[in-house]
Amino acid sequence: VTATDRPHAAFDTVVLAGDAVRMIDQRVLPDTETYLDALTADEVAHAIREMVVRGAPAIGIAAAFGVAIEARRLAGDARDAFALARAVGPAVERLAATRPTAVNLFWAIDRMRRIMASASGPATALAAALLTEAQSIWDEDLRMCRAMGDHGAALLTPGCRLLTHCNAGGLATAGYGTALGVVRSAWRQGRLRSVLADETRPFLQGARLTAWELQKEGIPVTVITDNMAAWMMKTGEVDAVVVGADRVAANGDAANKIGTYGLALAARAHGLPFYVAFPTSTLDLTLPTGDLIPIEERPAREVTHVGDKRLVPADVPVRNPAFDVTPASLVTALITERGIVRPPFGPGLQNLCVGG
Amino acid sequence: VTATDRPHAAFDTVVLAGDAVRMIDQRVLPDTETYLDALTADEVAHAIREMVVRGAPAIGIAAAFGVAIEARRLAGDARDAFALARAVGPAVERLAATRPTAVNLFWAIDRMRRIMASASGPATALAAALLTEAQSIWDEDLRMCRAMGDHGAALLTPGCRLLTHCNAGGLATAGYGTALGVVRSAWRQGRLRSVLADETRPFLQGARLTAWELQKEGIPVTVITDNMAAWMMKTGEVDAVVVGADRVAANGDAANKIGTYGLALAARAHGLPFYVAFPTSTLDLTLPTGDLIPIEERPAREVTHVGDKRLVPADVPVRNPAFDVTPASLVTALITERGIVRPPFGPGLQNLCVGG
Repeated sequence: VTATDRPHAAFDTVVLAGDAVRMIDQRVLPDTETYLDALTADEVAHAIREMVVRGAPAIGIAAAFGVAIEARRLAGDARDAFALARAVGPAVERLAATRPTAVNLFWAIDRMRRIMASASGPATALAAALLTEAQSIWDEDLRMCRAMGDHGAALLTPGCRLLTHCNAGGLATAGYGTALGVVRSAWRQGRLRSVLADETRPFLQGARLTAWELQKEGIPVTVITDNMAAWMMKTGEVDAVVVGADRVAANGDAANKIGTYGLALAARAHGLPFYVAFPTSTLDLTLPTGDLIPIEERPAREVTHVGDKRLVPADVPVRNPAFDVTPASLVTALITERGIVRPPFGPGLQNLCVGG
Repeated sequence: VTATDRPHAAFDTVVLAGDAVRMIDQRVLPDTETYLDALTADEVAHAIREMVVRGAPAIGIAAAFGVAIEARRLAGDARDAFALARAVGPAVERLAATRPTAVNLFWAIDRMRRIMASASGPATALAAALLTEAQSIWDEDLRMCRAMGDHGAALLTPGCRLLTHCNAGGLATAGYGTALGVVRSAWRQGRLRSVLADETRPFLQGARLTAWELQKEGIPVTVITDNMAAWMMKTGEVDAVVVGADRVAANGDAANKIGTYGLALAARAHGLPFYVAFPTSTLDLTLPTGDLIPIEERPAREVTHVGDKRLVPADVPVRNPAFDVTPASLVTALITERGIVRPPFGPGLQNLCVGG
């Protein structure tokens, strides 16, 4: 893979490479740019669980590719498409069980399951159809993020200084980003002055990934610790906040990386616009409100250690909810690939999906 | 120094030990409990700047001890008290210039300067008077923190779950703590169920110091990352917030560790009491509001690295304001050694100081 193979970004978040799902190892960024090749669905599942790949859309893409390479791997031994679908089934379930909060995972797997359910003919035909579907999910993600970025950029005042949290960037998607898609589009249009990136403890997606990705693009970025964000707003250094989402309920409540909720409270207290950018694949219209979104509690070690360095004394318990839910009442507008949704979000989100 | 020499705490934050100012090295806690002996005022100044010792009251005590040992060291070469005061003067100025925000530093140095200004007789008499004054500051701090703790504990409902930020503990004072003085008193009275400690990036005073100190006392403590605090309030796991302060203006605006302001906003949004505990030596009645409190910007490396591990890509700028200012309007009550002050804080704080 060379840079010329990547018109979409300066790196590959998750792509098909021969028989493998190739993923940039996000655990070791920004120190080294290393790619891992997963050759089975279980290797992809492991990569998702361990956060080699993370970010709701990228997890969905990785899972879809995981199903596709598993089917290709097993196609030779399967009598027909139906047998292949049955053989791949357990690995699909294991992929679906990797992480509970991001709905894009289930959405992407559902698309793959639909292809499997309509299977007929030779096993190789199903395997090819699954590869095509997975690649479509990747292609659509890139298109959706570009559209979302352009819609979102139009909301910003020229010279805008944006604050963002976690990494809702190219590294969380096929390559353009959701919140950072808005950043990319605004930068290209000359509307963006600079970005403040919360470091985003405990996994440090902001310090490690957003800073790395924006630096690569030449977009001015300054990193702050999460607890500085409210003070930066108070001292007038933030014009708007834009974040991604891992799952959005029918009323506009948005689950996103832990810390998003506190940011939204602070933005409201300072009268700053608070935008949530996500593809419609992140919508979960089966949930009336965000109260029903399951919140993943991740391993304690992410909080107690940075690398090998212990921060918290041994035997002191920690908490590690990976996400929180920002109520729709704190959100100024939702930014999707189909356009901007303003409050009240319920009818707006319904229209968006019916309209599409 | 043995445990039996420390009725006040299970460790020595800053004490006189022969000719030295002995300080627990807070940079390497909780990994190792190591004590550093500073033999000159400049060594004490270095320890303050490098955060061997930190926390507003502890900085004041360390500076006072620094002046005292410097005077004792130079007393043999000084003709008389006046000459000694002049000889010690430059080191006193260097101590005062170590950190700009905590007012206790200037308050403690002013007390030492007053002794120096009234100097007469032999140099050794002045040196002895300075030692006595510095030890008085230590003794008073311990008494004040116990009184403050008892006043504050009375505000809490039984079974209270407190959230605290940074370390306003024994490690920030002579040994009992301001916010953690309230925790200690509440625990002894059986009113406290548990403590949530923000890890407090970038220096991790909560994860490293508050967790260590409360674990040593057997008080149940759980560490969270700073960006989890608002979500813990939302999910009903916090009954009240108590923090310390580095400088409090005449109207009750309180400078404290970066992140305090965001916590106060979150507490207000959830209708939770927000308490600030500090000795009256932290009051700066010369400042009408907190807008005039200078905010120290600390070295970038505290944000970019944890130990030797780099978190932020090279050449990406960071911000590192060490403190923020919480407006009085977000504070439920101020807890001092002379009692509780309720809004409006201006008259209450004036009365407190006149009354004392």
